[in-house]
Amino acid sequence: MTRFSYSILARDGLARRGVISTPRGEIRTPAFMPVGTAATVKAMLPGSVRETGADILLGNTYHLMLRPGAERIARLGGLHRFMDWDRPILTDSGGFQVMSLSELRKLTEEGVRFRSHVDGSEHMLTPERSMEIQRLLGSDIVMCFDECPALPADRERIVESMRLSMRWARRSRDAFGDRPGHALFGIQQGGLEEDMRGESAEALASIGFDGYAIGGLAVGEGQEAMFACLDYAPGQLPDDKPRYLMGVGKPDDIVGAVQRGVDMFDCVLPSRSGRTGQALTRFGAVNLKNARHRDDPRPLDPECTCPCCTRYSRAYLHHVMRSGEIISSMLLTWHNLHYYQELMQGLRDAIEAGTLDAFAEGFHARRAEGDMAPV
Amino acid sequence: MTRFSYSILARDGLARRGVISTPRGEIRTPAFMPVGTAATVKAMLPGSVRETGADILLGNTYHLMLRPGAERIARLGGLHRFMDWDRPILTDSGGFQVMSLSELRKLTEEGVRFRSHVDGSEHMLTPERSMEIQRLLGSDIVMCFDECPALPADRERIVESMRLSMRWARRSRDAFGDRPGHALFGIQQGGLEEDMRGESAEALASIGFDGYAIGGLAVGEGQEAMFACLDYAPGQLPDDKPRYLMGVGKPDDIVGAVQRGVDMFDCVLPSRSGRTGQALTRFGAVNLKNARHRDDPRPLDPECTCPCCTRYSRAYLHHVMRSGEIISSMLLTWHNLHYYQELMQGLRDAIEAGTLDAFAEGFHARRAEGDMAPV
Repeated sequence: MTRFSYSILARDGLARRGVISTPRGEIRTPAFMPVGTAATVKAMLPGSVRETGADILLGNTYHLMLRPGAERIARLGGLHRFMDWDRPILTDSGGFQVMSLSELRKLTEEGVRFRSHVDGSEHMLTPERSMEIQRLLGSDIVMCFDECPALPADRERIVESMRLSMRWARRSRDAFGDRPGHALFGIQQGGLEEDMRGESAEALASIGFDGYAIGGLAVGEGQEAMFACLDYAPGQLPDDKPRYLMGVGKPDDIVGAVQRGVDMFDCVLPSRSGRTGQALTRFGAVNLKNARHRDDPRPLDPECTCPCCTRYSRAYLHHVMRSGEIISSMLLTWHNLHYYQELMQGLRDAIEAGTLDAFAEGFHARRAEGDMAPV
Repeated sequence: MTRFSYSILARDGLARRGVISTPRGEIRTPAFMPVGTAATVKAMLPGSVRETGADILLGNTYHLMLRPGAERIARLGGLHRFMDWDRPILTDSGGFQVMSLSELRKLTEEGVRFRSHVDGSEHMLTPERSMEIQRLLGSDIVMCFDECPALPADRERIVESMRLSMRWARRSRDAFGDRPGHALFGIQQGGLEEDMRGESAEALASIGFDGYAIGGLAVGEGQEAMFACLDYAPGQLPDDKPRYLMGVGKPDDIVGAVQRGVDMFDCVLPSRSGRTGQALTRFGAVNLKNARHRDDPRPLDPECTCPCCTRYSRAYLHHVMRSGEIISSMLLTWHNLHYYQELMQGLRDAIEAGTLDAFAEGFHARRAEGDMAPV
């Protein structure tokens, strides 16, 4: 049986081109993980998600525990079978979303007690229960249960929260046990405080994990502050394990983070934007709702090979978006996920070729040109 | 260039197994046409619609003329290219929907003046304008502009309306002109009055069309009354041309109508039901919203070969339906359209084999058994 492992194949500056091996398949890094919150990447069939080039999906513990329930998914054969995705799945711990989505939550040393936003039922999430849920789901990469304060927060709150998360990381590690072929990732916290990030990284490394996430960013601090943190945070984490920047991000966030040594990403942006008529392209964002596309026979991006760009005009995308047709979400989500995976492939190729800086320059230059000129 | 033609390959009782040839491909009859109202079969990509076995789609003149507009679609290369469907398209005339959907409509000998339900703009539909719009769309099978009274209606209203529709049929024929490779279908009216249906059929035959539709049914009269009308109406129409029962119907409507000599059908039921969680199966309708499916690991129909049935459990379909996920509409619409096309294939095979009555008996017997037994 393949065990979980990570190999670095090439480096360019701080950036790494690697591969994560799991019993369910390989994950080429830097990797972008589409988000499949409720056992579906919204508006996509799993085969189409794979066609975009995704090696791994992310599932949300918080949503799945509430509906349809982790025990139910386990009885039905696990999340992979339930949602028809046989490649790797990473699940978050529920820690972030229980704090942002649930009602009447109460945080203690033990964990978080809360009411479901779906039906008001009461639940308790602890490091032990989060590990159990992620095991029931059949997750390939399990995340430690952590607590993440919204930014800005004062230093005292950030230190206190980070140390609680480190105690929970220890409990997560103990509860996870030894599960060959499955990985447990620790999550660095510490807000924008370099010394706290360092303390967190040391605490995690001393426990020992299969990979390390950078948590607590992309929560409102802005790209400049995030990049300032990423100038030191990845380097505080072990070099020989994958580094995952949770919940990030926009295409330029990803390029900047890869240049700073990050290997894995997830974000709802490509799928969520697709449902609101926003296409993400090499030239930046294009809002298909805008009336200027009404008569435009050109594809969204003439060089893109996705079904949306090879088969439809901007005029069609505008029409179905304005008409509220489901195919609008289907096509734009497909395009956006395709674009993200193409960007990741470009980043991987550039690292292998040792040309990452030139790649990033080209990336920014095309976006500065903006959308294609009108007909 | 292939001209439009219709050949009857086999008969079984009143039923006919045929083929309609067009420059854009063949249509095997009896045929079911999925409805692509606003230039999309809702929740489906065109390639998937074709995979279900559909030879032809229906487009709605009323919707398309208002948004995005027939002239715009023509400038963009026609409806086939606009919506990425290169096989035949039949368009209705707008006559039925202008009476059911528009606002402030005024009916005269000339046509119907109305306000758009989309933006309140004023429009006029006449036989001549309907022919022009359907030509701009690039429709392969064009329908005459007609008027269709809701049932029940008194005989006087039905007679008056039918005779107006026959005058409009003449004007439609004149306006359509000679368009090799494109067909114009007349529409029989006359409500549930056998003599009026006969008068309408004679009027149409004397004008001469490439096919004949039975209009004004499935408007609230019930299956018994509809079948009573179908006991004579198809036989009043020319034998050597396709007969199309507009807006029908449920699977058992279709079986009964094929037995009575109808060749073509369209209905929003399979796609609309799919979006509300209702699956249409060999065993009848299954409501996936029902909590009894919550833990059911079985497929919707173990013998169905569609992606919904081969890849997902009822529990999954229940979950995504209850969670309001788009994939629910995508999977159930796919299944329902697949089931409809499989039913049509079964009917075609049975007519060829001369076993239509036995096929119909088996069809009704399976539905009487109901849904599969609980686990």
